[in-house]
Amino acid sequence: ANAMLSGLPTTIFSVMSALAVEHDAINLGQGFPDTEGPADLVDAAAAALRDGRNQYPPLAGLPELQGAVARSNARFYGIAVEPAREVVVTCGATEAITASLMALVNRGDEVVVFEPLYDTYLPVLRLLGAVVRTVRLAPPRWDLPRAELAAAFTPRTKAILLNTPMNPTGKVFTRDELEFIAGLVARHDAYAVCDEVYEHLTFAPARHVPLMALPGMRERCIRIGSAGKSFSMTGWKVGYVTAPAPLAALVAKAHQLLTFTVAPNLQRAVAVGLDKDTAYFERLAESMSSARDWLAEGLGRAGFDVLPCDGSYFLIADIAPLGFAGGDVAFCQQMTRKVGVAAIPVSAFYDDTGADIPDRYVRFAFCKKTGVISQAVQRLQNVR
Amino acid sequence: ANAMLSGLPTTIFSVMSALAVEHDAINLGQGFPDTEGPADLVDAAAAALRDGRNQYPPLAGLPELQGAVARSNARFYGIAVEPAREVVVTCGATEAITASLMALVNRGDEVVVFEPLYDTYLPVLRLLGAVVRTVRLAPPRWDLPRAELAAAFTPRTKAILLNTPMNPTGKVFTRDELEFIAGLVARHDAYAVCDEVYEHLTFAPARHVPLMALPGMRERCIRIGSAGKSFSMTGWKVGYVTAPAPLAALVAKAHQLLTFTVAPNLQRAVAVGLDKDTAYFERLAESMSSARDWLAEGLGRAGFDVLPCDGSYFLIADIAPLGFAGGDVAFCQQMTRKVGVAAIPVSAFYDDTGADIPDRYVRFAFCKKTGVISQAVQRLQNVR
Ligand SMILES: CSCCC(=O)C(=O)O
Ligand SMILES: CSCCC(=O)C(=O)O
Repeated sequence: ANAMLSGLPTTIFSVMSALAVEHDAINLGQGFPDTEGPADLVDAAAAALRDGRNQYPPLAGLPELQGAVARSNARFYGIAVEPAREVVVTCGATEAITASLMALVNRGDEVVVFEPLYDTYLPVLRLLGAVVRTVRLAPPRWDLPRAELAAAFTPRTKAILLNTPMNPTGKVFTRDELEFIAGLVARHDAYAVCDEVYEHLTFAPARHVPLMALPGMRERCIRIGSAGKSFSMTGWKVGYVTAPAPLAALVAKAHQLLTFTVAPNLQRAVAVGLDKDTAYFERLAESMSSARDWLAEGLGRAGFDVLPCDGSYFLIADIAPLGFAGGDVAFCQQMTRKVGVAAIPVSAFYDDTGADIPDRYVRFAFCKKTGVISQAVQRLQNVR
Repeated sequence: ANAMLSGLPTTIFSVMSALAVEHDAINLGQGFPDTEGPADLVDAAAAALRDGRNQYPPLAGLPELQGAVARSNARFYGIAVEPAREVVVTCGATEAITASLMALVNRGDEVVVFEPLYDTYLPVLRLLGAVVRTVRLAPPRWDLPRAELAAAFTPRTKAILLNTPMNPTGKVFTRDELEFIAGLVARHDAYAVCDEVYEHLTFAPARHVPLMALPGMRERCIRIGSAGKSFSMTGWKVGYVTAPAPLAALVAKAHQLLTFTVAPNLQRAVAVGLDKDTAYFERLAESMSSARDWLAEGLGRAGFDVLPCDGSYFLIADIAPLGFAGGDVAFCQQMTRKVGVAAIPVSAFYDDTGADIPDRYVRFAFCKKTGVISQAVQRLQNVR
């Protein structure tokens, strides 16, 4: 059996979700909304099953969705995209990330990543034989350690893998930080894989800026979006890649080996979603922003130190003020069992072969109904 | 950019489909039905969008579909399967094949494959760093070359990748051949990845036998099925893996890195399909069998030598009797342009770094409406 996969632990999301079920806990662990996305998308997905288009769509995606992705790039970020040659539709952002890294990386190439990081990044990079250069962001502000980042780039750097808005930190990279990153990418003739699945989930005054929108970056970025996150349909597994044509062609080849195509009816529904008026996206962000506020207030009242959060589904809380000494993993298990609220230990987002992994932070998902959050907050008052 | 992907030519299926469109040709190239699958599956897929289950399903698949896959294994082949631990749902058989090979192979491991072979097999194996041992089947009967196959197994053999019913040959491996393969697999303590997407498309008296159903093979086989092929919905991209629990767990980990989950509404519709009565599967095979007969008769009349075909969507014809000397690729281009029928040159199913690749065979897909086949046959009478 494959050694890397054999050594890969069960994803923390499944572990904590199972524990939540076992203890009938409120699950603020895995990041998925507990309400459905827009009804017109459901209608569109159902209607699109009925007009004889259930056979293989084109490899890179249906023209309807490629066009909608291009329009969305233009509307929100002023990025001009040729739909047929610069957009690739994938089975969710997970496939998009894996296919993009496959497209860029040869064994031995270096890839720069930020820690904490999403849990598929490292195993995929290892599978591809990449040499991973990890740069840690430090709580509570997760500011860019510029000197360290610059030192992580070498003549062998092929790419940086950048997640903004960032899971699990809720950090939204500022334009100034992105300009610094862009400078390094250009200077090292490297590329950026930009996981921007939370692009529409930023909380004012923070705003999402795609690295791709910066001068000189158009030809160096592979930008990844997610219908699951933008339309609250995480099960649909429709992702989309925007990249300069030569890179998009390589991502399409990787996609050919990984899944080949994506269900046409869901692609067509997502195209409807991407063409929604700007008010839809603003309302989505606003409702998520008030959920964040609710949860932050309740966590503060319960005795946590709540870290700043400018975007994503997630809020991080520092457990140190609670005086619990057993670390974040034990804390999360105990909180699930005793208080009935499940969350994710932030240490799970670190390379477990590394040293000095912070163990006093816990990630809570707030992409939940107001009633669920207030019930969780109520339970959390007994956490001490 | 990744060297292997950069060198990978555009898939022949897209190339020939584009040429067919350009010349308004009847497309008997890419293998997909030109009629939709059962209406009750469409209804089930549409209904399943509407009851609030559009968020992430479990990593390995919905219990509904895992159960249906297990029942199907029991009903058709007498294979007993524990649904929750031995079934993994994937984004189509393409992902299933890639994930299964990822699960088994370490760099340097040897994998035995038969040529001609499906066009993702070699690039995926190369990406994984496998050492590929190719065993050629010889036309027109594609009989198992037993001594050669035995010689291809070595102490470093990790797996054999077996496709039965076989694309592009239409060969259905016999029980006797499978027993020989099983002996080699057991003797070398190896595994088999069994691409059985055409399992329900065999033509009497031929019958599909899964290698997994043979004595001693239950713990050594990863068996792959496809809703696209069994329910004529190639765009849905729902595949399923049946494997002993320890291997299924590894396939699930690969799946976690490749796509994570599969759209719940399509999973639930496919569960309805797998529970259909046996008559449905028999009728599907019968209608495909008469399509094969129609096409074979017409190709014969047009001057081709038609090779035997016991299953799949595909028939191979020998162009030698037509006196065309330019090879199968040029023949297919010319046939598309001049006669208005597109098909696939069989040389595309060989490792292009190999020697003595046969170049007188053409693959025709017969998973098409009777009217389409008869029109194609009529056009083909002018092929000489
Ligand atoms: C893909 S399952 C996990 C969902 C998610 O993005 C998260 O919880 O971080
Ligand atoms: C996945 S596209 C090709 C469809 C097919 O299986 C074939 O034509 O061989």
